[in-house]
Amino acid sequence: MARFIKSRRKSHGAMPGSLIFIGNQKMESPDIRLMVYSRENVEEKHIESVDEIPEAIPEGAVMWVNVYGLQDTELVAKLGERFAIPPLELEDILNTDQRPKVAENEKNLTFFLRMLEYREEIEQVTGDQVSMVLCENTVITFQEKPAHYFEPVRERIRNNRGRIRYAGSDYLAYVLIDTLVDGYIHSIESLGTYMEAMEKEVLHNSQKSTLEKIYRLKTNVGFIRKAVFPLKEMMLFLNKTESKLIQRKTFTFLKDLNDLTTQTLEAVEIYHNMANDYLNIYHSNVANRTNEVMKVLTIFASIFIPLTFIAGVYGTNFDYLPELHFRYSYFVMLGLMLIIAVAMLYYFWRKKWL
Amino acid sequence: MARFIKSRRKSHGAMPGSLIFIGNQKMESPDIRLMVYSRENVEEKHIESVDEIPEAIPEGAVMWVNVYGLQDTELVAKLGERFAIPPLELEDILNTDQRPKVAENEKNLTFFLRMLEYREEIEQVTGDQVSMVLCENTVITFQEKPAHYFEPVRERIRNNRGRIRYAGSDYLAYVLIDTLVDGYIHSIESLGTYMEAMEKEVLHNSQKSTLEKIYRLKTNVGFIRKAVFPLKEMMLFLNKTESKLIQRKTFTFLKDLNDLTTQTLEAVEIYHNMANDYLNIYHSNVANRTNEVMKVLTIFASIFIPLTFIAGVYGTNFDYLPELHFRYSYFVMLGLMLIIAVAMLYYFWRKKWL
Amino acid sequence: MARFIKSRRKSHGAMPGSLIFIGNQKMESPDIRLMVYSRENVEEKHIESVDEIPEAIPEGAVMWVNVYGLQDTELVAKLGERFAIPPLELEDILNTDQRPKVAENEKNLTFFLRMLEYREEIEQVTGDQVSMVLCENTVITFQEKPAHYFEPVRERIRNNRGRIRYAGSDYLAYVLIDTLVDGYIHSIESLGTYMEAMEKEVLHNSQKSTLEKIYRLKTNVGFIRKAVFPLKEMMLFLNKTESKLIQRKTFTFLKDLNDLTTQTLEAVEIYHNMANDYLNIYHSNVANRTNEVMKVLTIFASIFIPLTFIAGVYGTNFDYLPELHFRYSYFVMLGLMLIIAVAMLYYFWRKKWL
Amino acid sequence: MARFIKSRRKSHGAMPGSLIFIGNQKMESPDIRLMVYSRENVEEKHIESVDEIPEAIPEGAVMWVNVYGLQDTELVAKLGERFAIPPLELEDILNTDQRPKVAENEKNLTFFLRMLEYREEIEQVTGDQVSMVLCENTVITFQEKPAHYFEPVRERIRNNRGRIRYAGSDYLAYVLIDTLVDGYIHSIESLGTYMEAMEKEVLHNSQKSTLEKIYRLKTNVGFIRKAVFPLKEMMLFLNKTESKLIQRKTFTFLKDLNDLTTQTLEAVEIYHNMANDYLNIYHSNVANRTNEVMKVLTIFASIFIPLTFIAGVYGTNFDYLPELHFRYSYFVMLGLMLIIAVAMLYYFWRKKWL
Amino acid sequence: MARFIKSRRKSHGAMPGSLIFIGNQKMESPDIRLMVYSRENVEEKHIESVDEIPEAIPEGAVMWVNVYGLQDTELVAKLGERFAIPPLELEDILNTDQRPKVAENEKNLTFFLRMLEYREEIEQVTGDQVSMVLCENTVITFQEKPAHYFEPVRERIRNNRGRIRYAGSDYLAYVLIDTLVDGYIHSIESLGTYMEAMEKEVLHNSQKSTLEKIYRLKTNVGFIRKAVFPLKEMMLFLNKTESKLIQRKTFTFLKDLNDLTTQTLEAVEIYHNMANDYLNIYHSNVANRTNEVMKVLTIFASIFIPLTFIAGVYGTNFDYLPELHFRYSYFVMLGLMLIIAVAMLYYFWRKKWL
Ligand SMILES: [Mg+2]
Ligand SMILES: [Mg+2]
Ligand SMILES: [Mg+2]
Ligand SMILES: [Mg+2]
Ligand SMILES: [Mg+2]
Ligand SMILES: [Mg+2]
Ligand SMILES: [Mg+2]
Ligand SMILES: [Mg+2]
Ligand SMILES: [Mg+2]
Ligand SMILES: [Mg+2]
Ligand SMILES: [Mg+2]
Ligand SMILES: [Mg+2]
Ligand SMILES: [Mg+2]
Ligand SMILES: [Mg+2]
Ligand SMILES: [Mg+2]
Ligand SMILES: [Mg+2]
Ligand SMILES: [Mg+2]
Ligand SMILES: [Mg+2]
Ligand SMILES: [Mg+2]
Ligand SMILES: [Mg+2]
Ligand SMILES: [Mg+2]
Ligand SMILES: [Mg+2]
Ligand SMILES: [Mg+2]
Ligand SMILES: [Mg+2]
Ligand SMILES: [Mg+2]
Ligand SMILES: [Mg+2]
Ligand SMILES: [Mg+2]
Ligand SMILES: [Mg+2]
Ligand SMILES: [Mg+2]
Ligand SMILES: [Mg+2]
Ligand SMILES: [Mg+2]
Repeated sequence: MARFIKSRRKSHGAMPGSLIFIGNQKMESPDIRLMVYSRENVEEKHIESVDEIPEAIPEGAVMWVNVYGLQDTELVAKLGERFAIPPLELEDILNTDQRPKVAENEKNLTFFLRMLEYREEIEQVTGDQVSMVLCENTVITFQEKPAHYFEPVRERIRNNRGRIRYAGSDYLAYVLIDTLVDGYIHSIESLGTYMEAMEKEVLHNSQKSTLEKIYRLKTNVGFIRKAVFPLKEMMLFLNKTESKLIQRKTFTFLKDLNDLTTQTLEAVEIYHNMANDYLNIYHSNVANRTNEVMKVLTIFASIFIPLTFIAGVYGTNFDYLPELHFRYSYFVMLGLMLIIAVAMLYYFWRKKWL
Repeated sequence: MARFIKSRRKSHGAMPGSLIFIGNQKMESPDIRLMVYSRENVEEKHIESVDEIPEAIPEGAVMWVNVYGLQDTELVAKLGERFAIPPLELEDILNTDQRPKVAENEKNLTFFLRMLEYREEIEQVTGDQVSMVLCENTVITFQEKPAHYFEPVRERIRNNRGRIRYAGSDYLAYVLIDTLVDGYIHSIESLGTYMEAMEKEVLHNSQKSTLEKIYRLKTNVGFIRKAVFPLKEMMLFLNKTESKLIQRKTFTFLKDLNDLTTQTLEAVEIYHNMANDYLNIYHSNVANRTNEVMKVLTIFASIFIPLTFIAGVYGTNFDYLPELHFRYSYFVMLGLMLIIAVAMLYYFWRKKWL
Repeated sequence: MARFIKSRRKSHGAMPGSLIFIGNQKMESPDIRLMVYSRENVEEKHIESVDEIPEAIPEGAVMWVNVYGLQDTELVAKLGERFAIPPLELEDILNTDQRPKVAENEKNLTFFLRMLEYREEIEQVTGDQVSMVLCENTVITFQEKPAHYFEPVRERIRNNRGRIRYAGSDYLAYVLIDTLVDGYIHSIESLGTYMEAMEKEVLHNSQKSTLEKIYRLKTNVGFIRKAVFPLKEMMLFLNKTESKLIQRKTFTFLKDLNDLTTQTLEAVEIYHNMANDYLNIYHSNVANRTNEVMKVLTIFASIFIPLTFIAGVYGTNFDYLPELHFRYSYFVMLGLMLIIAVAMLYYFWRKKWL
Repeated sequence: MARFIKSRRKSHGAMPGSLIFIGNQKMESPDIRLMVYSRENVEEKHIESVDEIPEAIPEGAVMWVNVYGLQDTELVAKLGERFAIPPLELEDILNTDQRPKVAENEKNLTFFLRMLEYREEIEQVTGDQVSMVLCENTVITFQEKPAHYFEPVRERIRNNRGRIRYAGSDYLAYVLIDTLVDGYIHSIESLGTYMEAMEKEVLHNSQKSTLEKIYRLKTNVGFIRKAVFPLKEMMLFLNKTESKLIQRKTFTFLKDLNDLTTQTLEAVEIYHNMANDYLNIYHSNVANRTNEVMKVLTIFASIFIPLTFIAGVYGTNFDYLPELHFRYSYFVMLGLMLIIAVAMLYYFWRKKWL
Repeated sequence: MARFIKSRRKSHGAMPGSLIFIGNQKMESPDIRLMVYSRENVEEKHIESVDEIPEAIPEGAVMWVNVYGLQDTELVAKLGERFAIPPLELEDILNTDQRPKVAENEKNLTFFLRMLEYREEIEQVTGDQVSMVLCENTVITFQEKPAHYFEPVRERIRNNRGRIRYAGSDYLAYVLIDTLVDGYIHSIESLGTYMEAMEKEVLHNSQKSTLEKIYRLKTNVGFIRKAVFPLKEMMLFLNKTESKLIQRKTFTFLKDLNDLTTQTLEAVEIYHNMANDYLNIYHSNVANRTNEVMKVLTIFASIFIPLTFIAGVYGTNFDYLPELHFRYSYFVMLGLMLIIAVAMLYYFWRKKWL
């Protein structure tokens, strides 16, 4: 299966707005968590159907509907109806291969995001799609499977830390995106630490397997890049949106998030370039090693080949070969061979091959 | 024949607006299919000449004229006259090598598109030009030969699925483009799957033929790129056009299509970069293998050349060569040889060549 | 002589607007052709001096003054005076190394263009400068030597084909540029065909001369690029100019030309990248071949060196060497050698070197 | 630890505006220096707590609060309160891995800068974050540890050199940034001098260690790039800001600083490209040396192998081998060998291998 | 000393606008030349001090103050005072490593330019800074040492050629810049000619020294690039400036200069790319040569190693070795060897190694 683009065979030629789940089912049945909080109190519960979502919430309160599992397209359709999410956005929520983006209409803002995770067992960065719909006093999040990364936000709501309990639904949306981007930095940092640790192997001890490691690294950096680039676009959009769903005071936070995204992007770029450098250095190191192998061969061959030749000459069976009959010929020959060997060694030493 | 640009020899120096078919004739005679549909009913028929196209269609109905085969320039000229298509657009409809683009005038919007297909028998992505003229209540499509890819749209019209029967001619145009872009994603996905399958060959088992495969891959990626890049420009144009032919409510769909195009573009870019990486890794692997070959040679040569030299020395025929006459000389020599061989092996093992 | 920039030694430090011919004289004496045409009739003649150009032409008629040969700076100066061409433009007309561009003033538009030609005898794309001044009802073209490429336009005027006889001087200017760009596509197509034909050589049969061919190709692609890039700029300028010399109805044609230019540019880019790919593949192929050569050497050496060593051992002249005196020693040795050889061959076969 | 991105594990999932120190503590306890100056006099002192900062300073005076050591988040929080620095900026002041940037609000401008230093003992360019808040008549600087680089500015204030004593707090901010950028140029100059000195090694005397040196260089250039790129953005922002905190007359200085930044950027780019060139040249040099090694081997082997073969032939023990019994056979053989050797040498000399 | 950035150690931390000469003193004492010209007459003289400059010049006249030698910062300061040049510009005039740029204020335009020169003795392009201040009826030029390149302009003024005597100070400024850019083209042309001459060496006859030549070339191209890139920016600025110092009629000339700059830029880019291509081709050529060396070795070794083995076998001293005693064994062996050698040669010929 292609890693960088998911199979759309199921939806090929389907009409726009068709609700077809594209992805791998990761849960047996979907799970909905509801959280309603205001300055005064917090209420949390699991619900079974969309009908259990309250029609109205108190003035100033914020509702967070968290949906895990996307295979139940019926459920998603109902949510869409309840919160006036356009069919095209619903389609993309179910198509879990969306490019990070934000869609705006009068009633809501839909965010398509990606959560990154480094999975050690396959040495790959993988990414689940996280969709989020921001309505007037509600945030709905859609995830393929339960995940831990929003837990700190829930804790903050429960414990009433910071401004979250009285800052509106747009602030909640901001906090959730911020949490995901924090996770990106975490992934990049892991990758960076691994990469800088690999430096020694690349520079001094590269082996055949090093090449594959570098390639895996490049692919992972590419995967992160694919997620971060469009995020930057999203940030630029958010920082100049005129949507009524976003309060003036939230913009300060969005600008900060924009800066964080830029920093993330530049770090990815640096590791991308570094991976390219690794590839070049690896190649030069192979060439260096071949050079060394050749030197060993050449030194051995160049010293012994002439000597063997001399021995060969005195191994011939000519009737008349005067040197054979002198008393010290053998020792003279050995001496001559020694001189030749020493001369060759000196020559190679001068050439700095030794 | 150049793959990336078609021969214009026939039209070289021809006057602008000349109707000359540039391409390979793919049908014996052209074929026109007519489809008129409205909220209430659908009518389909094959027609022989442009004169059979009805002068007027009911209020709210949409007519789709589908022309297969472009060699009959007369026919195309007549259609142009009937639907007020400017001569310059007609010329480009017949010149089947157009860069994807859209041309706008008061009466119609002409789209020049490309349909991509991976043809296994030649291991190449090929692309037919598909031109489409959007008029007030009519869409005319021009194709070089009959093709299956618009069939799902026809089915949707026949079965009245979704909004297509009451959404106007601009929605039909959108649906047709969307269908083509879906096909791009399909091509890229195939290429991606093939590419990721090749990964193992590139990393562990590369051969001479691998190089050619990588090159073919790069060319195919380049071919897709050539089609997708201008599509993005077209999308940007459509998303801000003020043409009266496009209804306000259709823009939501065009934005969605724009996102899909961007996603397509980024996937192509990733595979483009991956193909470049393959080339580099292939090269490093060749260097690695040469290094290995050299090691084998050097180990063999470096061990046996000194030994052969020793044997050579005792093969000389000197009258006075004392060692020859000691009782255990031969065994001493063999022992010495063994020590040298073991020492050399240890040396190579230390160097990690073994 | 530098190919990509012509020597300006003659004009170094000359005052702006100095009329100095920079280029190679390609004709003995200049030649002026005059063509005056209107809806009703066409008149053609050769003239000797600028004074023979009629003061006025009939309402609705267009005059085309075609000058071949630029060494007569006097002549060019007179033409400049007659048609109010600014000195700085005249200077550039004579300096035949201009970057394609367009200069605008109230009375005229001056186009600096380049005609491309693939000259087989030197395997080079060469390019002559073609300058063109568009005045109210006149077009003046300047060429270094007579050339065939405007002949089809003259034919079209003579035979009154298309709209040329009644479409004004701006349309003539457009048609002439269009003819040149058609020629570019022709050059690129030739290059592309040659390039794709070279593919087989690069992939399967590369030799030392292939490298030079690839380099020549790159240089030629670079030469075309240098001509096409600025043309795109010129097109963008023309498509939004407010000059009164260009009629509203001509813009449709200019947009079409703009599209053609973009297509040309992209084809050049693709061949540019392909040439780079060829260079990389060539390099990998050399490495592959070296690898193959090494394998042959290693196989031969690794099989025979041990065998030769064994023969060497039994060629020694020790008094006491028991194996020499056994009855079947020789055959045992031959058998042993055979086993070693087969084992080595099996080893190499397992390593896929055979 | 990843060099290009600092661990945010401590702040992962923390709420926005949390004051958490991210970095390595470099001082035991923080240190605050206060400087209040006006046209007439200068006052300097160390203070222990934020409460010691005067509520008001004389009309026309400027106060510079210099904080060393950031681990005391309490202190930073108090300063934030006193000077109305928004929590998000305080958070970034403590997170010492900020991308250089400037944050604007009604009451102040916060600059996040970076100070570069080439540390010889680790052969690395390192960079401390320097944050600076510009308020109406106050500048607050935050540094991780005491550093010498602002000393010349203090000297200038003390000695009343130039306009600094009467030019306002924005001029002080400008002077401090200017001082940091001067330091960048200093770092780049050091790097450049080192690099140009390395040229000879790369071109004529490259060794295995050269590759690592080049890699280190690239990493350092990359580190500087990461600091300079965003600085350019900051300069563009400052040159068109409408903040009331910046006086009209200060813009001249900001434009000059912008030019300096551009120059810095271009120098970095040149050294970046040069480092890439070094890598390529290094690789070609390795290939050159391998070529040379191979030539030595080939010359030795190609001369002696045929000679050894001849000797081998006359070392065979055939009963009937006529040449063995001629009187001068041995000398004829030696002569033949000499001729072969000379012919081979001539052949290699002709091939320019000698 | 770093070539691409000059040491600023002297000015490190200095206050903005400090007049410190940065560069190498190239004259013993500064030299000022004064030229006052109008339509009617020209006056030239050397002066000793700024006080000798006339307070006023006749209506319509232009004064050109040409300063050689910048070490006398006093003198520059006085000139600055006399002509209202801001201190920051004076600082940059003395800092002879400025990026080409233009600074605008109400009273004058200051140009920082660079003069390029190919110095054969060090095979390097070097560049002196040339600063120029344009005031209402005055042009002041600052150069590090006397130079010939403005002489043709002086000649033109003396001889009243062209419009220079009555076109104003802005025209003089234009003419001086034009002269410098003409010089760039001259440098690029020299480099190009040299480069194209090197082509043969790179393609057919590359040696170790070729690599260094290519590197020198790249560095020189990079040096020119560094000067030309910012010039283009300056041209874009000048072509849209609203400064009153530039007359309407001068814009035609500035546009022409802009075109020339663009052409210069593109030529530099082409030679930049060509130098990169040279590097690649050089590398492939080294690989080709190694391949050739290997072939020679392999052919020799593969032919003679088996033959030597055969001779070795018949050189063994076994008591029972039947072939030794047949009458024609020796000749059969020679024949067998011949057959093997011919077979091997045929094999290598088939492989196209011969
Ligand atoms: Mg990538
Ligand atoms: Mg990058
Ligand atoms: Mg980068
Ligand atoms: Mg970067
Ligand atoms: Mg890079
Ligand atoms: Mg690169
Ligand atoms: Mg390489
Ligand atoms: Mg491409
Ligand atoms: Mg890319
Ligand atoms: Mg990319
Ligand atoms: Mg890449
Ligand atoms: Mg790339
Ligand atoms: Mg890229
Ligand atoms: Mg180029
Ligand atoms: Mg390109
Ligand atoms: Mg391209
Ligand atoms: Mg490209
Ligand atoms: Mg490419
Ligand atoms: Mg390219
Ligand atoms: Mg290479
Ligand atoms: Mg970098
Ligand atoms: Mg760069
Ligand atoms: Mg660059
Ligand atoms: Mg650069
Ligand atoms: Mg470069
Ligand atoms: Mg450069
Ligand atoms: Mg470039
Ligand atoms: Mg270029
Ligand atoms: Mg380029
Ligand atoms: Mg480049
Ligand atoms: Mg290139």
